[in-house]
Amino acid sequence: MSFARLQKKIDELNNPTVVGLDPDLAHIPPDIMEKCIEEYGENLEAASRAIILFNMGLIDALCDIVPAVKPQSAYYEMLGAHGVLALSLTCEYAASKGMYVIIDAKRGDIGSTAAAYSAAYLGTVKVGESEFMPFNADALTVNTYLGSDGLKPFIDTAIEHDKAIFALVKTSNPSAAEIQDKSIGKDMVYHVVGDLLEDISKDTIDEFGYSRVGAVVGATYPIEAEFLRNRLKHTFFLVPGYGAQGGTASDAAFSFDKNGRGAIVNSSRGIIAAWKKSDCDYMEAAREEAIKMRDELRSVLKKGK
Amino acid sequence: MSFARLQKKIDELNNPTVVGLDPDLAHIPPDIMEKCIEEYGENLEAASRAIILFNMGLIDALCDIVPAVKPQSAYYEMLGAHGVLALSLTCEYAASKGMYVIIDAKRGDIGSTAAAYSAAYLGTVKVGESEFMPFNADALTVNTYLGSDGLKPFIDTAIEHDKAIFALVKTSNPSAAEIQDKSIGKDMVYHVVGDLLEDISKDTIDEFGYSRVGAVVGATYPIEAEFLRNRLKHTFFLVPGYGAQGGTASDAAFSFDKNGRGAIVNSSRGIIAAWKKSDCDYMEAAREEAIKMRDELRSVLKKGK
Repeated sequence: MSFARLQKKIDELNNPTVVGLDPDLAHIPPDIMEKCIEEYGENLEAASRAIILFNMGLIDALCDIVPAVKPQSAYYEMLGAHGVLALSLTCEYAASKGMYVIIDAKRGDIGSTAAAYSAAYLGTVKVGESEFMPFNADALTVNTYLGSDGLKPFIDTAIEHDKAIFALVKTSNPSAAEIQDKSIGKDMVYHVVGDLLEDISKDTIDEFGYSRVGAVVGATYPIEAEFLRNRLKHTFFLVPGYGAQGGTASDAAFSFDKNGRGAIVNSSRGIIAAWKKSDCDYMEAAREEAIKMRDELRSVLKKGK
Repeated sequence: MSFARLQKKIDELNNPTVVGLDPDLAHIPPDIMEKCIEEYGENLEAASRAIILFNMGLIDALCDIVPAVKPQSAYYEMLGAHGVLALSLTCEYAASKGMYVIIDAKRGDIGSTAAAYSAAYLGTVKVGESEFMPFNADALTVNTYLGSDGLKPFIDTAIEHDKAIFALVKTSNPSAAEIQDKSIGKDMVYHVVGDLLEDISKDTIDEFGYSRVGAVVGATYPIEAEFLRNRLKHTFFLVPGYGAQGGTASDAAFSFDKNGRGAIVNSSRGIIAAWKKSDCDYMEAAREEAIKMRDELRSVLKKGK
């Protein structure tokens, strides 16, 4: 859905965070995995079933305090078709609990291929006279290297089905600078990419002032985030890099507007694998960490910038 | 596998082409689709079965004259888990017929997420004590916007399992220039990306002089392709944009080295949907077009540059 629905959900829970459902098999508690292997055998189907159970437990534990989840597609694709089924069931379950679902797949292609991706994740697919929604996410992450041809088909689908996308601008990783920070005259590559997003989405602005094309802006680069926040007035930010990657709540705060809106901060491992450093079960441990993250962000956003 | 195996296969068949298996449902002959709908109902499973039958027919018709196939992941993901099963079965069947398999998924992420993608497509995944190869492609296309963090995990897997990747440098679409052609001092963004590929792969060079990290270079930009061919001595090129997108055999020729090696040219629709403009069945029509494309490339490469 548009970011207006996401912003309302964030306001309602007073919590601008999203939990990354990145079910690396090493993050799944051994009892869940063992139970599934016992039932299905030592195979990709068992692992996929374990992911579904794990995610359902996390969603149950978090849905009344966290507005959104962000499944990372790679960890599902790892298990082939079985894993992709787990992805679609995870999205369905999260949506049934009222959560906003962002599939983090960083897709990027052109023309009819981009249209196929957007139909898969945000739209509908027709077989004969029947229509299906294979994943029915609210938003999808996309890559920007291909330019506007790689964004337009996603935006068209987003408009048609009341969805949104987050496009890569300044990623959270150490080598992001190798391409993204190269100077183009007085700008850098990621500035040009950000400007492209503002330009291409200007007819899709919602009641909060944000378009359907958001930007991925890493919490690990707070100076760049502040610069982008001032430059991209109509762009909602998805902020990875908090927690395990080193970004703090104060760093993430630079991605919010003066009203404390316009951004959502992701944590994956730090929450879903919190049980490894805890005496609680994985659901309680995740909830504790999610509350801690929420309170940290509330605290820095309350202070203002 | 490394590009050396691909080059040997190209030399053996004297045909530097790859057929893009992009099974848009509109490209599948109606009798195949109707048969599957009759058997499975009007649903994503029926469409996925139709794709498998369609692809098997194409592979049978082409495997003795065309060295490689390139399934475009978007058209499989469109059908959810059923479609992803069709992708893995297509890869398996093409490999069983001796074809080199390039999955065109343009994946791009960092750290453990990139490692998960590379395990899925090029490597192995462990459940308990058992190991699985979910897709077992020979090569995968990857995006470069994230810098070397987004490439290294794929290269590590490629080295471990004797595989390769093709990274986006200069794509074939009209808006490629919006980011890729921006000037960075005396270079352009895509030059910097190309140089990064040469640098990061320099320890993986095979007997033909090519590394495990190839580049996607569109046939629609012949001047840029010639420039890159001269600059990236150790980089094997995957050349999209031939045929339906407007690139000719003469345009594609700029991606080859002086020995007529170091590149492979893709055509998708032009071959797999050739039946729409033909009186033959789809397999014969595809074979005719594939022979025509092969002969055009042979002719321009024979002339030399």
